[in-house]
Amino acid sequence: MRTYLDCIPCFVDQALRAGRMATDDEKILKRILDEVGMMLRDIPLESTPPETGMLVYEKVREITGEFDPYKELKIESTEKALALYPSLKRIVEQSNDKLLTAIRMAIAGNVIDFGPNRDFDIEEEIDVVLKKEFAIYDYDKFKDGLDKTSEILYLGDNAGEAVFDRILIEELKKPVTYVVRDVPVINDVTYEDALQAGIDEVASIVSSGTSAPGTILKTCNAEFKEEYNNSDFIISKGQGNYEGLSNERRPIFFLLKVKCHVIAQDIGVNVGDIILKGLDV
Amino acid sequence: MRTYLDCIPCFVDQALRAGRMATDDEKILKRILDEVGMMLRDIPLESTPPETGMLVYEKVREITGEFDPYKELKIESTEKALALYPSLKRIVEQSNDKLLTAIRMAIAGNVIDFGPNRDFDIEEEIDVVLKKEFAIYDYDKFKDGLDKTSEILYLGDNAGEAVFDRILIEELKKPVTYVVRDVPVINDVTYEDALQAGIDEVASIVSSGTSAPGTILKTCNAEFKEEYNNSDFIISKGQGNYEGLSNERRPIFFLLKVKCHVIAQDIGVNVGDIILKGLDV
Repeated sequence: MRTYLDCIPCFVDQALRAGRMATDDEKILKRILDEVGMMLRDIPLESTPPETGMLVYEKVREITGEFDPYKELKIESTEKALALYPSLKRIVEQSNDKLLTAIRMAIAGNVIDFGPNRDFDIEEEIDVVLKKEFAIYDYDKFKDGLDKTSEILYLGDNAGEAVFDRILIEELKKPVTYVVRDVPVINDVTYEDALQAGIDEVASIVSSGTSAPGTILKTCNAEFKEEYNNSDFIISKGQGNYEGLSNERRPIFFLLKVKCHVIAQDIGVNVGDIILKGLDV
Repeated sequence: MRTYLDCIPCFVDQALRAGRMATDDEKILKRILDEVGMMLRDIPLESTPPETGMLVYEKVREITGEFDPYKELKIESTEKALALYPSLKRIVEQSNDKLLTAIRMAIAGNVIDFGPNRDFDIEEEIDVVLKKEFAIYDYDKFKDGLDKTSEILYLGDNAGEAVFDRILIEELKKPVTYVVRDVPVINDVTYEDALQAGIDEVASIVSSGTSAPGTILKTCNAEFKEEYNNSDFIISKGQGNYEGLSNERRPIFFLLKVKCHVIAQDIGVNVGDIILKGLDV
């Protein structure tokens, strides 16, 4: 997905919020805004939003000297999700279509996001997403692809959300490679977060190599790119991965909750909608 | 009121929205964002938000070549308000406290704003504001001051809203000078807008001399400043005028609806609250 004009004020807003996670020194925060302001002219609208996100969050890191401002928040998110895990598993076990319910769980977990939107109530979200109608529903294609594939490449999104991904992975019944960001960016899932969520018990964990808040292939490492290019069944969680991969020609299923009007417009749905969208399937 | 850090992403957002009123050429809009981005480092947090607003809207004007992008919208707002005028007058006439009801009307009109917030339904707003509890309610002081003064300086805010101001002016029963912006900025009220609203039938209209979306004294003309300094009863409508004058030591009554969390925090109230706040009274 390209960068839309509306992404630009949002980058400035995100820079301020990320800065505030690291410091409450107003002079430092103003400097972040000043420098991000000067970066705007170097953002081509042709680039994907997470490419710019990467530069913005790197700038925040550089100015604040804080490498991982969301660390505590991520640990707490995962703890909270782990506490919910037994009851979520029970809901899946007792449902008529366990795979579909697990997909809904994975989408509900996508609300744990401290990027553009950060106000959420995960328990309320689970109730909503379990009942909500999908705006795009390629479930038959998903089951078809899952039947035929021998393994799955699963692109993680946020910490905490990974616990919900684990529930879906447990229903896929095939070998899964779970992909994490290489370094902390916002509350995106890293190797440590995936470990805390117990992903290592159900999948092998690899880093995509990127420090962007999304899968931007040109910033990924060679190992990941090879795996990606050879995979015939890819699950992509969340907006950041969608933004990076929406113009690809690979068999990708996007699972996400639409949290901003720019992405809603790009997909052709509404904010708040849930999506199970097959790309080249 | 000083500029808060949260005002800065909002300036960038406002620049985009103002630009879109003038053009849908994405290259021009991107240039506006680029140039406003570069201006950020020159915004001191000590200045008031409308001072920066003035520079931002001047930049939009300069780049788009469009002097008054909100012109049509302003004319329509006033026409819509004028159509409501007879029924609003009836409500005031039939109320127990006509002055208070007229104050509430003037505050309801303050929702007609295409600056930071632009989604509103004026008829719904009237219903709400007629019943809503004031978060700050200096009505007794207002009546006291009104009794004692021989004339009133009334600082207008937006076009369309001026029709609602007229209803209040008609209940003040004293000579009123109605102050407008010197040139169009956002949908702020100018001389032409005040005329269309019929303000000339109930008050004398003067320009403050400013092109800022608020009363920034250092950008105002000498005539206005003299009148301002000699007035013993000033009514100030809306956020922009509050932002410019909140640290003054003059007998000002601020009438406004709080539309953004920065101003809510500055005043110590909540977004959505209505205010009748006497400053140095």
